Amino acid sequence: MTNINSLTTPALLLDRDRMCANIERMARRISARGSRLRPHVKTHKSRQVLADVRRLSENHGITVSTLKEAHYFFDGGERDILYTVGMTPDKVPLAAGLIQEGCELTMVTDNLAMANLLNSAAVSANIVLPILIELDVDGHRSGIVPDGPELLALARTLSAASNLDLRGVMTHAGGSYNCRSLDEIRKHAKLEVDRTMLAVNRLGEEGLECPVVSIGSTPTAAVVDDLSGITEIRPGVYTFGDLFQVGLGTMRIDDIAISILTTVIGHQPEKGWVIVDAGWMALSRDRGTASQRVDQGYGLICSLDGNVMEDVIMGSANQEHGLLMARVSAAPLDLAEFPVGSKWRVLPNHACATAGQYNHYQVISQGSVADEWSRINGW
Amino acid sequence: MTNINSLTTPALLLDRDRMCANIERMARRISARGSRLRPHVKTHKSRQVLADVRRLSENHGITVSTLKEAHYFFDGGERDILYTVGMTPDKVPLAAGLIQEGCELTMVTDNLAMANLLNSAAVSANIVLPILIELDVDGHRSGIVPDGPELLALARTLSAASNLDLRGVMTHAGGSYNCRSLDEIRKHAKLEVDRTMLAVNRLGEEGLECPVVSIGSTPTAAVVDDLSGITEIRPGVYTFGDLFQVGLGTMRIDDIAISILTTVIGHQPEKGWVIVDAGWMALSRDRGTASQRVDQGYGLICSLDGNVMEDVIMGSANQEHGLLMARVSAAPLDLAEFPVGSKWRVLPNHACATAGQYNHYQVISQGSVADEWSRINGW
Repeated sequence: MTNINSLTTPALLLDRDRMCANIERMARRISARGSRLRPHVKTHKSRQVLADVRRLSENHGITVSTLKEAHYFFDGGERDILYTVGMTPDKVPLAAGLIQEGCELTMVTDNLAMANLLNSAAVSANIVLPILIELDVDGHRSGIVPDGPELLALARTLSAASNLDLRGVMTHAGGSYNCRSLDEIRKHAKLEVDRTMLAVNRLGEEGLECPVVSIGSTPTAAVVDDLSGITEIRPGVYTFGDLFQVGLGTMRIDDIAISILTTVIGHQPEKGWVIVDAGWMALSRDRGTASQRVDQGYGLICSLDGNVMEDVIMGSANQEHGLLMARVSAAPLDLAEFPVGSKWRVLPNHACATAGQYNHYQVISQGSVADEWSRINGW
Repeated sequence: MTNINSLTTPALLLDRDRMCANIERMARRISARGSRLRPHVKTHKSRQVLADVRRLSENHGITVSTLKEAHYFFDGGERDILYTVGMTPDKVPLAAGLIQEGCELTMVTDNLAMANLLNSAAVSANIVLPILIELDVDGHRSGIVPDGPELLALARTLSAASNLDLRGVMTHAGGSYNCRSLDEIRKHAKLEVDRTMLAVNRLGEEGLECPVVSIGSTPTAAVVDDLSGITEIRPGVYTFGDLFQVGLGTMRIDDIAISILTTVIGHQPEKGWVIVDAGWMALSRDRGTASQRVDQGYGLICSLDGNVMEDVIMGSANQEHGLLMARVSAAPLDLAEFPVGSKWRVLPNHACATAGQYNHYQVISQGSVADEWSRINGW
């Protein structure tokens, strides 16, 4: 076991004990409500993390955000994969390769024009593509509204297409990230279920069955109560947690399983700044909490053993420099508490964005470095 | 030669013709002013890009932002490397390894406490570390002010240290990124030179020579006129350019050499949105232009052949989804111009941040894909 203090900085720490607790908590919550998890792996992109997810929760395949993830996790033994970014014809050969190797790969679309392009590409590739209709339940980004005439037209086209296999519907209630209270998120979660089931029922009335009814976001998954009719739910960030989830109220600070280790390289005494060797390349440019009640800058500072310095944030960052400072509302830092050469941890705004800046996790258990795990990035 | 349209999206395109023109322009400008370039490689992190930089401009070593870059470029044949993030004692073994292999590796610090820690670490590693004093010329982040008593104390300590070799001074006028006009940047560039030379002269009066006087940022390098006394200048972003530099006025839109290729996956007709398969993972979370006169969202849209759609930006982004929309000031998009399956290019806010999201460049020359180049990331 290596001491955390001996790692070269910056480094991405993953507290495996916290992560496992997060995985178990979500697994219990979804299973108690009679649905199944199809965890989103875009947050961690790591086979070793997925092994813990599979060990600790009963899953129903995985969700990926890129076909590179699909390949990587398929090569790691996963067989049931849902790719949730609207499919394009020139990705069909990549998908066909996976399907021919035995992957149960499902993809999504939300429009007629793309359905026709996908069918042509599938004919050329001599493959049948399993497809879910992407629903727009909250005006967040993509998807087709569940109550318009286009839904039935799209479903009939998909159903009639020679080389497409309509399997059901999916949505992502991304609007939940704009909620300002747990109560708002609960209402949003109900909206996600209700709007999805409206589409399912309309399709059912036309004789179009939906074996797959897939919803999910970490905020809504954390609070949703009634999952009747929902066959699977797809949270991702819950494995690691982050300050944005804390701001939403869906996770606690002590649930956050990843942090960036950094070293103090200097001070600016007149300004009360502590300069560290981790900047936005190490934390990502994500400033998501800027829109929340508590702006955490580029991250919230902890001691090596995880004690949160509640009023100390990375208030500014350049590519490889971070500036630790007191919150505007707090007294200036006592720089003597942050001697040059000392190491600190930074809790990130957004787990997916921060972890995406690294190729490896330094896995922490019981306060020591227990392992190094790999992850993938790119497309 | 591959057609750009046949690439799978998202992909990072590098227009080599534009890049080479950018390299030559900066090389001419600095050499005409009697100084030398020590180009910063943090923007591209690619040996193949550096080969073009070396071919087209007379350089004086390179600048790196991580010791991983130092190793990578040393292994690629570079011998003279300046690492410009304040050195820490636990990185000394890494640096010592490079120096023992023949690398002329110089590093920086800005405080006495770190100077003492570095000397102890250098004694332990049985190595002499070449050091520059980092100056703070504009209150931007790190560095020691050139007109205070601490400068001489630090210089004397470094000069007297058994295993440190004081080689001179360096600064980065990062405050130039906050300038609102070319005239302001010119004043800032003069400030950078004047404040640096003040330190050099004060040290000289104490008998402390500065063989190395190193300054630089892309904005100041683009406009600085009098480089008397400056031995080297370290711009980085100029190789690729980006929308932030365009906003500053230091580069033109047609100089931007990198862009993200993306495919339309759907529309939201009522909102006038075009949904594409590149989000903030593909562009980075950098929203630097939000603080400039023209906010470019997550990026400005071009056709495949590089024609800029002046009023079309990626106005919003999720991890793998981007929303193209008209600027607030412009008429809504005609979605028929953006059919599903069509491909577009997105010019980024910040070249360093966007390129950092990829492991490869698709190198474009004369409008076709000519090559694939690799780059490194991480620490």
